Amino acid sequence: MTRKNKGILTVVSGFSGAGKGTIMKELLAKYEQNYALSISATTRAPRPGEKDGVEYFFKSREEFEKMIAAGELIEYAQYVGNYYGTPKAYVGKQLEAGRDVILEIEIQGALKVREQFPDALLLFVTPPSADELKRRLIGRGTESMEVIENRLARALEEAEGLEEYDYLVVNDVLEECVEEVHEIIRNEHYRVSRNAGNIREMREELKGFTRRQD
Amino acid sequence: MTRKNKGILTVVSGFSGAGKGTIMKELLAKYEQNYALSISATTRAPRPGEKDGVEYFFKSREEFEKMIAAGELIEYAQYVGNYYGTPKAYVGKQLEAGRDVILEIEIQGALKVREQFPDALLLFVTPPSADELKRRLIGRGTESMEVIENRLARALEEAEGLEEYDYLVVNDVLEECVEEVHEIIRNEHYRVSRNAGNIREMREELKGFTRRQD
Repeated sequence: MTRKNKGILTVVSGFSGAGKGTIMKELLAKYEQNYALSISATTRAPRPGEKDGVEYFFKSREEFEKMIAAGELIEYAQYVGNYYGTPKAYVGKQLEAGRDVILEIEIQGALKVREQFPDALLLFVTPPSADELKRRLIGRGTESMEVIENRLARALEEAEGLEEYDYLVVNDVLEECVEEVHEIIRNEHYRVSRNAGNIREMREELKGFTRRQD
Repeated sequence: MTRKNKGILTVVSGFSGAGKGTIMKELLAKYEQNYALSISATTRAPRPGEKDGVEYFFKSREEFEKMIAAGELIEYAQYVGNYYGTPKAYVGKQLEAGRDVILEIEIQGALKVREQFPDALLLFVTPPSADELKRRLIGRGTESMEVIENRLARALEEAEGLEEYDYLVVNDVLEECVEEVHEIIRNEHYRVSRNAGNIREMREELKGFTRRQD
């Protein structure tokens, strides 16, 4: 029954130091067939061997700013003088084709995704305890006060938005956490709210069958 | 973080012929440690070897009717002249102790459970397709028209309430379906909405930590 489902757009966010980058990498390596990688658009120049539409959609600054203006990006940011963003059309096409898409975005971006894709699944990755988070934020005692305070301020800001997320994923043992994320996305396909079409169809078929019995 | 969670009350319903009884049996056999069986109250006489509070809570008709009147049963029904019901206090105690409880109840009962336990997780088990459901409802062609019509009417009635459920679980391969149900319940513990206390605590700890830095 779930074969006719649309893909699920999953956004992975989390405290810095929670290991979300590693989780994403492991998940995509282990379940390559299951997920479509979102391909970002960028104004950065292609490096040798990089192909347009494979690693990135390469855009001029003018093209990128047109995409922003036209609302063609789910979210975007600047990094070292270049734009990076998530093209809405590409993600939408993957979802329509029934493929699950995963994005790793920080909390502000995640909320923008939900505005545009209300069915998006929002996962928040956290270390196993507040103590552990503290330890990771302080680092090895070699960080400047400024760095620590920045991290703390950011963690607090991120924690404020936690209620907007659907699941809290605890990253204790990496392998287990990767499985956890995979399972959550897989099970989400069985949500009644994501099967409205299938349910309607089954009901209609049942009704048709009763009429034939009259 | 999820260690401080309350248990989850899961209600399993489904079309007749969907195999929910078998799923429950397999699930409880395989994951005995994970789930608390709800012990029913009944007015039926104990059979040799049956102990009060183990197989059933044995009650007189008068006691049972007092429980009904006092709202002490989540749901109840009569079967072959005896009452059977689910005591609310027992279920509540298990949940408070952090144990997951599973009940197999038909749709009307499931909705009553949700009224009293708004956090209950409602699973609906269905055969893999409407065609397969049809086949199971018709049976082997030896059933009377009345039996078939009763089954159809009931399936249609059950299908009407489907949107009230959280998950649609497809029972194609039994072993996979049992795993599916187990995973859904397990993952549900990671829902942000079920971790309000843990989130609040983590936030407070983070805030406390910032103050110490001032």
